[in-house]
Amino acid sequence: MVAGVHFLPGRVDWRDVGWKAMASNISDIAAMGGRPAFALVTLCLPPDAHVADIDALYEGLRACASEYGASIVGGDVVRAGEFSITVSLTGTATTDASGAPLLLRRNAARIGDAIAVTGPLGGSAGGLRALASEQASDQVSALMRRHMRPQPRVDAGIAAVEAGVRCGMDISDGLLQDLAHICAASRAGATIDAPRVPLDDALLAAYPDDALALALTGGEDYELLLVAPEATLAGTARRLPGTLAVIGHIVDDAQRRVRALDGAGREMTIGGASGFDHLRDVKA
Amino acid sequence: MVAGVHFLPGRVDWRDVGWKAMASNISDIAAMGGRPAFALVTLCLPPDAHVADIDALYEGLRACASEYGASIVGGDVVRAGEFSITVSLTGTATTDASGAPLLLRRNAARIGDAIAVTGPLGGSAGGLRALASEQASDQVSALMRRHMRPQPRVDAGIAAVEAGVRCGMDISDGLLQDLAHICAASRAGATIDAPRVPLDDALLAAYPDDALALALTGGEDYELLLVAPEATLAGTARRLPGTLAVIGHIVDDAQRRVRALDGAGREMTIGGASGFDHLRDVKA
Repeated sequence: MVAGVHFLPGRVDWRDVGWKAMASNISDIAAMGGRPAFALVTLCLPPDAHVADIDALYEGLRACASEYGASIVGGDVVRAGEFSITVSLTGTATTDASGAPLLLRRNAARIGDAIAVTGPLGGSAGGLRALASEQASDQVSALMRRHMRPQPRVDAGIAAVEAGVRCGMDISDGLLQDLAHICAASRAGATIDAPRVPLDDALLAAYPDDALALALTGGEDYELLLVAPEATLAGTARRLPGTLAVIGHIVDDAQRRVRALDGAGREMTIGGASGFDHLRDVKA
Repeated sequence: MVAGVHFLPGRVDWRDVGWKAMASNISDIAAMGGRPAFALVTLCLPPDAHVADIDALYEGLRACASEYGASIVGGDVVRAGEFSITVSLTGTATTDASGAPLLLRRNAARIGDAIAVTGPLGGSAGGLRALASEQASDQVSALMRRHMRPQPRVDAGIAAVEAGVRCGMDISDGLLQDLAHICAASRAGATIDAPRVPLDDALLAAYPDDALALALTGGEDYELLLVAPEATLAGTARRLPGTLAVIGHIVDDAQRRVRALDGAGREMTIGGASGFDHLRDVKA
């Protein structure tokens, strides 16, 4: 996470920056059905860094690691022109009787599989909008918290691999974009029944007109996208608290499209569906 | 490694930057007697980054990883204001019959132990001086290569733990400074017989007057510092090609001093013995 790109240093609680840096890595482990283990933290510090901010950052890093059973075991601190933090995290996988790891992969979707998400979407994107707008209300505070204190779904990833799910990932770039990664890797297409996508309550209250678009395209919710036969997903749901919503299916499509359908089965056009491109200015 | 702090982007071969970023991490594994395994590479790229430079950087990273049996298995690429690269590397340890890891640690020096280094020192610091001076000669080229293409001593670390050495580290900040870390952790002092410190041939040729000072205080040679009873070090030497030079001893010293003695046994004063302080401007 880089100051000025991933967060604005003057406007954040450093505890939140720490939490999120750790949470996004824990979510990468959850995305494959793993259990987080050991983290290395590297800090680039500019000359105007303050020790109190770094202490708060570590407080957030440690709180998140501790919540998910991970330990910070090392790293590095170096001088730099701007602040950035890099977290590297190892994890362990559930194994079968022969010791082979059971993992969620992007290339294991089969035509006819159902697509499910482990919780409501769009809250984090709503929180980002709320932060920019400087509004204040209970809903807006809840949304900001969704954005700043994401809760990776380690429990859901483990439950999924134990129930036999072999395809999935975390939603970090946005539902449609991340599902497109699964379709490309699995050489298939997908249809989403948009009315079945679970929407964050606070998002619906604060931004009712844009809630669905934010849920389909907003990133950093860190819920999991699971792809498996419907019966396998039902087995996963029984192992989980809360919802596991089936929202669509994998279909045969040579063009590997991800299509969102409205209540009448018509294809929807979603504005701004492309995620943030870190490389847009890099020269070939 | 941060552009402008660890290297000057306009004046380096990006292959060398990649080699050194990987080599410094491999040396951290060698420092404990381990064997490098899996690397994650995170790049922060500014808007003016060029793909050809990044390709060259990865060429250097891969060449070094491959030389030492490590694999680059993942990482991240993010947009930033300045270039930096973070490498995280796992390693495996030699184990005893019960499966307990055999490692080199900083806190295991005992009074009376001998102190050895695995090869000539000062070459990297000489190379840095040569780069700044823009001189050109065969010696200067050799020194620059020592600075830009360091060779971590994975072989020496493994040989040392197999021979029973339990105390050591790599020389990354400079002999005196790194030995001070061992003395602090082991609650002891150290004396170095300066004439016994092996000096880089090219360093002696290019900078005869400053060779010893550069060898005692210059960083990034990535040779190993080993501390053990003299017989154990002799056993290590038999397992290694090249030199293992005994240069001093661990002594009882409540002040945990590291003292360099000249040929007549007089304590030497070395100018500029302090290493680079990444945190010198950070505010409390």
